[in-house]
Amino acid sequence: MPMAHAANKTTPSTSEAPLKALSVSEILAASPDADWRAPDPANTLYMDLAGGRVVIELAPRFAPEHVANIRALARGHFWDGLSIYRAQDNFVVQFGDPDAGEAGARSLGDARARLPAEFERPAAGLSFTAIPDRDGWAPQVGFVDGFPAARDPASGQAWMTHCYGTLGAGRDMAADSSNGAELYVVIGQSPRQLDRNITVLGRVVRGMELLSSTQRGPEPMGVYEDAAQRTPIKAIRLASEVPTGQREHLQLLRTDSATFAALTEARRNRRDDWYKASAGHIDLCNIPLPVREAPSPLR
Amino acid sequence: MPMAHAANKTTPSTSEAPLKALSVSEILAASPDADWRAPDPANTLYMDLAGGRVVIELAPRFAPEHVANIRALARGHFWDGLSIYRAQDNFVVQFGDPDAGEAGARSLGDARARLPAEFERPAAGLSFTAIPDRDGWAPQVGFVDGFPAARDPASGQAWMTHCYGTLGAGRDMAADSSNGAELYVVIGQSPRQLDRNITVLGRVVRGMELLSSTQRGPEPMGVYEDAAQRTPIKAIRLASEVPTGQREHLQLLRTDSATFAALTEARRNRRDDWYKASAGHIDLCNIPLPVREAPSPLR
Repeated sequence: MPMAHAANKTTPSTSEAPLKALSVSEILAASPDADWRAPDPANTLYMDLAGGRVVIELAPRFAPEHVANIRALARGHFWDGLSIYRAQDNFVVQFGDPDAGEAGARSLGDARARLPAEFERPAAGLSFTAIPDRDGWAPQVGFVDGFPAARDPASGQAWMTHCYGTLGAGRDMAADSSNGAELYVVIGQSPRQLDRNITVLGRVVRGMELLSSTQRGPEPMGVYEDAAQRTPIKAIRLASEVPTGQREHLQLLRTDSATFAALTEARRNRRDDWYKASAGHIDLCNIPLPVREAPSPLR
Repeated sequence: MPMAHAANKTTPSTSEAPLKALSVSEILAASPDADWRAPDPANTLYMDLAGGRVVIELAPRFAPEHVANIRALARGHFWDGLSIYRAQDNFVVQFGDPDAGEAGARSLGDARARLPAEFERPAAGLSFTAIPDRDGWAPQVGFVDGFPAARDPASGQAWMTHCYGTLGAGRDMAADSSNGAELYVVIGQSPRQLDRNITVLGRVVRGMELLSSTQRGPEPMGVYEDAAQRTPIKAIRLASEVPTGQREHLQLLRTDSATFAALTEARRNRRDDWYKASAGHIDLCNIPLPVREAPSPLR
């Protein structure tokens, strides 16, 4: 029984492992429905690949101009037939138009070619759920609207952080040279050095394995030399533009809920028998966001 | 020109990106040969897959019993024809005998079935190159013999940390239930909560992309339900047991060298024009280990 074997015998245990899962499962099972939310279809992107669907939640409160442009690009079917043309190990996959900026580049349609940088924004007006754990990159870290984020009380600014699954807008040398057409997703160790250097605008909530298992391109950048290695994009759509019957019915745990706080604490101080030493700490980018299928009455 | 495009126009820049690369390249180009070392063939494993070779450096000073057992397993060709049977997204791939502990399990040959836990060891006797950057998981972090590591002045103990590419020995509930036959490699965000909970015994120095791009198994553990999804292992051998003509000729930058310190500083405070804000910090697991082909006179 390979499953039982691997689950019980020889494996570093995650919260999903059987013994740990009891605790996490119990916390999740006890969660009130009010601790869950359905992402807004107008802020949700579906990226359809041959292997399946990647679901992305956008963050208009951090990057309103970029999100508006991405909505325009999706409505114009900009990405359909384009590709993931870069996969750099332990860093990012990048997708969009491999010929952007060249002759033969695809038209942006109604979208804007250039946007202001949206690297950070005032913390005022955001509901910031801080975690007490020390962070080397920022004075304070936590979550805003479900997104991992940081803030600096001295500057009064807040920004989204680069964790596994973070979506950002590729740019040129100029800070204001991104438009959301070329996007990247983090597939490796959190590259927090990018924080406040590039516009972050969302996060993958389902389907990361479709991006992270992409064959890597050659060093140093991971851009495929052979176009045949690219992963074609069938379509990228706003959920709100997809017929109801073709939508996902996901719910995300609210990061300002008691359930989320309890799960974080269960990871900070592991209580199952597998762990012999408890870290007493958790890194912002080690806290996953629970996602579930919506209970059917809510569909 | 997709390469030029991606390198120059729309991409978050790593140290390998052209503009950054100048700085890093200059540092590396100026490095004296004495700053590089060839890994000991008796501490080097080659894991040969259909897609290529994964090169692993073992850490006998941290896990002498496990490394000795792995040498015995490799000499006995224990892993040949076995597989990577688990790939859990943002966590680990695991390989060995999927039937371990079951009827039909492969014999360990001359290797021992059970070893003492080697979770940590006295810091005394190790040359520990500390980095000044704060770490949430340990009082002090840095490098020992090229491996990312931590130490606690209060306990006088040191241990290897879980970063991208770290190799560890899967175990059961008992701390002393690992024997090195079932191994895992970190393919996601550093799972530092495993530190001091499991025996860490090495690190992948080349070929990570062969492991990290493996198709993921189903949740929660990533163990394939269908044996056909496993990645077969052609052979795992100690480099010292491989004919000279079939060996790799790699050199690793010494982590106690001035060159390594300069590279780390260049990443801590990015100086190229792409970066608008410099982090002034680096996380232990964001510091890569430079690897190069040995200059031919040294072969």
